[in-house]
Amino acid sequence: MNLSKRITSMQQSPIRKLVPIAENAKKQGKKVYHLNIGQPDIVTPDEFFNAVKGFDEKVLKYSFSQGIPELIEALIQYYKRYNIKFENDEILVTNGGSEALLFSIIAIADHGDEILVPEPFYTNYNGFSSAVGVNVIPVTTKATEGFHLPPKASIERLITPKTKAILLSNPGNPTGVVYTPDEIQMIADMAREYNLFVIADEVYREFVYDNLDYTSFGNLKEIADRVIIVDSISKRYSACGARIGSVASKNKDLIAQILKLCQGRLCVPTLEQIGAVELYSVPQDYFKGVHEEYQSRRDIVYNALKEIPNIICEKPRGAFYVIAKLPVVDAEEFVIWLLKEFDVDNETIMLAPAEGFYSTPGLGKDEVRIAYVLNEKDLKRAMNILKLALEKYPKKK
Amino acid sequence: MNLSKRITSMQQSPIRKLVPIAENAKKQGKKVYHLNIGQPDIVTPDEFFNAVKGFDEKVLKYSFSQGIPELIEALIQYYKRYNIKFENDEILVTNGGSEALLFSIIAIADHGDEILVPEPFYTNYNGFSSAVGVNVIPVTTKATEGFHLPPKASIERLITPKTKAILLSNPGNPTGVVYTPDEIQMIADMAREYNLFVIADEVYREFVYDNLDYTSFGNLKEIADRVIIVDSISKRYSACGARIGSVASKNKDLIAQILKLCQGRLCVPTLEQIGAVELYSVPQDYFKGVHEEYQSRRDIVYNALKEIPNIICEKPRGAFYVIAKLPVVDAEEFVIWLLKEFDVDNETIMLAPAEGFYSTPGLGKDEVRIAYVLNEKDLKRAMNILKLALEKYPKKK
Repeated sequence: MNLSKRITSMQQSPIRKLVPIAENAKKQGKKVYHLNIGQPDIVTPDEFFNAVKGFDEKVLKYSFSQGIPELIEALIQYYKRYNIKFENDEILVTNGGSEALLFSIIAIADHGDEILVPEPFYTNYNGFSSAVGVNVIPVTTKATEGFHLPPKASIERLITPKTKAILLSNPGNPTGVVYTPDEIQMIADMAREYNLFVIADEVYREFVYDNLDYTSFGNLKEIADRVIIVDSISKRYSACGARIGSVASKNKDLIAQILKLCQGRLCVPTLEQIGAVELYSVPQDYFKGVHEEYQSRRDIVYNALKEIPNIICEKPRGAFYVIAKLPVVDAEEFVIWLLKEFDVDNETIMLAPAEGFYSTPGLGKDEVRIAYVLNEKDLKRAMNILKLALEKYPKKK
Repeated sequence: MNLSKRITSMQQSPIRKLVPIAENAKKQGKKVYHLNIGQPDIVTPDEFFNAVKGFDEKVLKYSFSQGIPELIEALIQYYKRYNIKFENDEILVTNGGSEALLFSIIAIADHGDEILVPEPFYTNYNGFSSAVGVNVIPVTTKATEGFHLPPKASIERLITPKTKAILLSNPGNPTGVVYTPDEIQMIADMAREYNLFVIADEVYREFVYDNLDYTSFGNLKEIADRVIIVDSISKRYSACGARIGSVASKNKDLIAQILKLCQGRLCVPTLEQIGAVELYSVPQDYFKGVHEEYQSRRDIVYNALKEIPNIICEKPRGAFYVIAKLPVVDAEEFVIWLLKEFDVDNETIMLAPAEGFYSTPGLGKDEVRIAYVLNEKDLKRAMNILKLALEKYPKKK
């Protein structure tokens, strides 16, 4: 039986194939520190569980395709804190940020159209796009430049009549980059000049360190009808398993059109939405604690990386990832070696080889993504293992 | 800003546009009996809520992209009752039957490919397909024939080199048809002869009346690698708001490919899966009570329809819908009139105009779908309103 070309050519999760090797290491009694996935260890606020457990209706009915009104209202109030004003018909609740991305891409691009994405990028941007026949055109950014954007002219060269949007995450996964106000303005200018949408994945909005200025694309009034904001409670409130995301835009027609897709899948789970309402009402100082925790984790990882010879890495300013260029020939081989052949007192680490985050062939081969989602003690231990491993690793550059 | 052609040309939910009219009737104090949507009033088994409320982990983490192992196992056991044997790597948990359908279509058809669907059909079959560039080719069935399939030769005439699958629901939404073993065999023969997949939406599997023989496509060993079974707990356990569905196939390669799409959206909500495990373990006699209830509702609706002059309608054998051909010029106009201008003691009914379930222009214009999802007393009252309304309605044929 022939399957579709789009599915067979779809990239497998680059981390996925290493999972059995990690499982095998664990079976042999090795402890593995997981720095390879963005699963935070932060406790999900009780408010979520209490709300879910308080549900007392007898029939678990379909809820509104748009999302329950209480959650739409909670999102409106949330955005107000950032001086972003959305109205009731400008927000849709989605099955995680994932569905928000998929629906946004379907709504703005037809088969054969193109979207520009700074690489390295979240792998699923490519997965969703290719599943619906849209081509991701990478805008290459570099470790040596802290993954900031190249000059405007370099990006403009990639724009064709088929280009419909620029899709980017800010703060960035997997890079940890936080775009400067100038970069944001450059994107806005291009959006206007070339008639493009901006799909802004801002799920890490609260994770910006060093008191850096953060500009949301939602703050740019002059391109308000071009901006699509993708959000999620997964990282914001450490509720990854709830799968509650949203898509918002001042372009009411766009939202009305995406609503048709939402109606197709009927609704987002009722209980999880009820929980999410309470999360968005958690007092602001919740973020203070979480933010401090992540910033000090970032410092631990970054300072440790700086002490290891021949690693190239700019200080990440947001999210909870860093991409480091290692002095190895092939980062994936190194990750496998860490799991199979290396340990410190029977402990090792798992990292994400970064090649899968690039779509330009050959790039990222000596890079890894480190997610700093462990507590400080474990992180220190993990970084020490990385240091000792690089001393011993035979296939160095 | 230009949106994609696929989104702007996507059909709006045909029921949706009537909702404001119904809301308006309610505001004016009219009671509206909703026979227009498939939202059952049956109580969701307590097992679901108890399981969800028993969750006591501190972090709501991502779960497995495939689905939690307990739910996969529960599904394996569930299918065994129907003599369908699935293994662990032949089932994926999805966000409702909706996502199972969307992912199946993406996996078996490329842009410009075609799938055959008996019409009238569940509107979203068309919505999902057009969103991903796949063309639905309708196989017309008729009220006068109880919506059974036309002869093989009529279907074969619609098959082209671009045809990749036959998609059908059995028992059928919106028709209530239950295909005979001969019809099932005919579909199986065509699948083999023309190298097609069969996407079998069997979410109403338990809702078959009159002790009729029911054949699942999962029982056809000779086309096991071509069959994709779509399922859901929404109607089965009256848990529409949980959004837990599944896709299953003996074609392991297909499942492995669809898993890539599942990995893209990370996972299905953890809590809802935990609840679903317990639903699939609810004792079999749960269905006995539900089944009796629906069968007697079906009888109330069908008998009432038979007593109204000039209605054409064969007895539906499954699901909880019936399509009736009314003696009116335009069923949508009639539905609007029911809401705006008619009442019996300040009560009226809402029906779903059936034209939106057809893709062939002009068909179904005088038909409505009635969902018998109300209790017997309300149903009797609602059917009486329909009878009186047709006596008074001015635009009759």
